[in-house]
Amino acid sequence: MERIRTTEAAHHVGQRVKLAGWLHALRKMGSLSFLVVRDGFGTFQAVLQDVSALAHCQVESILQVEGMVVTEPQAPGGAELRDCVVRVLVPIAEPPPLSINKRAVKASLDVFLNHAPIGLRHPAQRALFRIQAGLMAAFRAYLTSQGFTEVQTPKLVGSATESGANVFTVDYFGKQAYLAQSPQFYKQLMVGVFERVFEVGPVFRAEPHATVRHLNEYVSLDVELGFIRDHHDVMAVLNLLIAAMLDHVQQQHAADLALAGVDLPQVPEAIPEIDFRAAQALMAENAGWDPRGEPDLAPADEKWLGDWAREKLGSDFLFVTGYPTEKRPFYTMPAPHDPAVTNGFDLLFRGTELVTGGQRIHVYSQLVQAARTKGIEPESIAGYLEAFRFGMPPHGGFAIGLERFVMLMAGLANLRQASLFPRDIHRLSP
Amino acid sequence: MERIRTTEAAHHVGQRVKLAGWLHALRKMGSLSFLVVRDGFGTFQAVLQDVSALAHCQVESILQVEGMVVTEPQAPGGAELRDCVVRVLVPIAEPPPLSINKRAVKASLDVFLNHAPIGLRHPAQRALFRIQAGLMAAFRAYLTSQGFTEVQTPKLVGSATESGANVFTVDYFGKQAYLAQSPQFYKQLMVGVFERVFEVGPVFRAEPHATVRHLNEYVSLDVELGFIRDHHDVMAVLNLLIAAMLDHVQQQHAADLALAGVDLPQVPEAIPEIDFRAAQALMAENAGWDPRGEPDLAPADEKWLGDWAREKLGSDFLFVTGYPTEKRPFYTMPAPHDPAVTNGFDLLFRGTELVTGGQRIHVYSQLVQAARTKGIEPESIAGYLEAFRFGMPPHGGFAIGLERFVMLMAGLANLRQASLFPRDIHRLSP
Repeated sequence: MERIRTTEAAHHVGQRVKLAGWLHALRKMGSLSFLVVRDGFGTFQAVLQDVSALAHCQVESILQVEGMVVTEPQAPGGAELRDCVVRVLVPIAEPPPLSINKRAVKASLDVFLNHAPIGLRHPAQRALFRIQAGLMAAFRAYLTSQGFTEVQTPKLVGSATESGANVFTVDYFGKQAYLAQSPQFYKQLMVGVFERVFEVGPVFRAEPHATVRHLNEYVSLDVELGFIRDHHDVMAVLNLLIAAMLDHVQQQHAADLALAGVDLPQVPEAIPEIDFRAAQALMAENAGWDPRGEPDLAPADEKWLGDWAREKLGSDFLFVTGYPTEKRPFYTMPAPHDPAVTNGFDLLFRGTELVTGGQRIHVYSQLVQAARTKGIEPESIAGYLEAFRFGMPPHGGFAIGLERFVMLMAGLANLRQASLFPRDIHRLSP
Repeated sequence: MERIRTTEAAHHVGQRVKLAGWLHALRKMGSLSFLVVRDGFGTFQAVLQDVSALAHCQVESILQVEGMVVTEPQAPGGAELRDCVVRVLVPIAEPPPLSINKRAVKASLDVFLNHAPIGLRHPAQRALFRIQAGLMAAFRAYLTSQGFTEVQTPKLVGSATESGANVFTVDYFGKQAYLAQSPQFYKQLMVGVFERVFEVGPVFRAEPHATVRHLNEYVSLDVELGFIRDHHDVMAVLNLLIAAMLDHVQQQHAADLALAGVDLPQVPEAIPEIDFRAAQALMAENAGWDPRGEPDLAPADEKWLGDWAREKLGSDFLFVTGYPTEKRPFYTMPAPHDPAVTNGFDLLFRGTELVTGGQRIHVYSQLVQAARTKGIEPESIAGYLEAFRFGMPPHGGFAIGLERFVMLMAGLANLRQASLFPRDIHRLSP
């Protein structure tokens, strides 16, 4: 008999089927025992009279169960297996370090992360990471449908230029190499080739501090597109992309959303936008503090703006535009009306920065000058500049932090909960 | 007027349209000039009477061209633009370091790679990398349809164990970290969670030599699945996956295949399989050398077997099974009939190893013993072993080298030609 998945079993009422998976739970009720089998897709209940085959088996033992599928309103999912034959494939003799068959994992985050290979087996945990996989799939599918080409660019780079302070160094055959902090330069180069590109891959930040919203390695969803008018064309793509990603998760991951307890936001047809200085003035008037003159938004500012957007505009999302030139990277396009501010933007989601993006400088001489102004020697980025010397169109793009998107969507307290095996200043394993 | 893509222009005969892109080529024929505009998708010809607007423009200048689409059998694609209005968006004053508007790029590989941001703009080059993107998309789509979940696992790891010799070291806040040589351990852990998983991402090999078929950073397409009988279940998934990937490219990238000059192989319904020792015996009898007793296949052996499979079996693909235990990683499942050989396999494509895979050991005590036998202390891989201590099903998997697939498919002489920005012992930029 071919094995079927637990998630298919309820469609086979009246037939004998074979399941295989982990011994998720086993509890005795009088003369009957209720066995929950967990496979990679879900769980299914089997009712046993005789549990002698499982006498020496702890939870997480690997089993095969054959039985008759019977409708049972009391059972989870409305059906269960009866008249079962159980075969133990891999017996496990000791209980796991974490209990993964209760409603929630009861362990501190540190203990959970130390035992992530086991903890991630909890149905709510894996639902969260199936949602994460769904976000990646939808990101690629939407962009591909819009003429974007996927690229894979190097993570080992020869120059630390983009922001030299927080970069990891690698011993590269006796020379020094660096781990890319973002695919920024490469995705821009590839606009010169494909015009519209995206990349999904790891980025590395050697930030020497441990906060609940930073990781030292994370997955960046990067997009760059050419032949734009200005950053508003980029924001329009982002708006539709976020809507497509959430729509996909809504359609394809309803069961995972319920298991993980995730409440999906609505994406407005046009996400509201506020100018950076206007936002500061608004806070000066209403927030109880005066951020005017600051070159960037503090986390408390973002939080206040998030609440304001939620209450006054009914939106979980808010674009902030017109960031000061001083705090944006050298390649950011200055605003045409005022070179002290940029065509850069952030997208706040529930009061936290989710996306950073903007229009880039595309004219060679202007870019060389902008690099020099920030103290970057053009020679140190010659490979990057070459693309501009030989023709680049007006372009821009953005980067979404995948784990941060999941964290904010699921209301997690710590970004580490949105990474399978997070890396921070204290953690390199498992 | 909204800009349209060059690839759409021929569908607008009798209408005025606007194109934007690079000045790909301009040649005078008597009183007329033929301008080829290249955008991110293709090229289109425009006929100009007056080229004074382009007087100071070299190729790769950024242009907008408005004109009337007219059927013209002589034009590439059967149509061209006439009555044109040309606007220069970004003039370029000097010619590029490589000519990218001839049938092929005429430059040594080294010169090409030094100027990759420009060279990759050549239509044949970018067709190759669109095919590469198509292979990734099809890899994910097929596996997703078969219940596999995508994972993203860390590239910064705390232990160099898997094969310590050729691993890059990273300065991680004063401690030593390593760049993952493969997601092997992590994808196995994730079988404990999702049962069927895949990952697409960079891997890093500090091999201190420069050959035409190795890179120090490449893209690995990794797959792992649980609840198998043995490695033949894994090979069956791989067989169908390769067929799905090539089918997708055939269907979706016909124009790219023609541009890049790629001749797609047929994938047999059941790729033929030969036992390692039988293959050696076959060569001893027919090849002119005797590899019997060697623990692995040499490149010349693989080449001979590839030719043999092509000639005698009519297949570009050949599975080799039964590799000696001595040369396979410690986690490889020994063959049930003979522990000196394994349930590991390679897939040869046109006489070169394209995929390595196999069944893994899933029983904790056996895995601990196997590690010790290869001189690996179980304590050094405790996080990995924990998954096995608490229940892992029979499982196996494989890894496809993306660049190598493209190289072999396109008949490229050097793996560097199948990587956008290759990394080798001498090259870290651009």
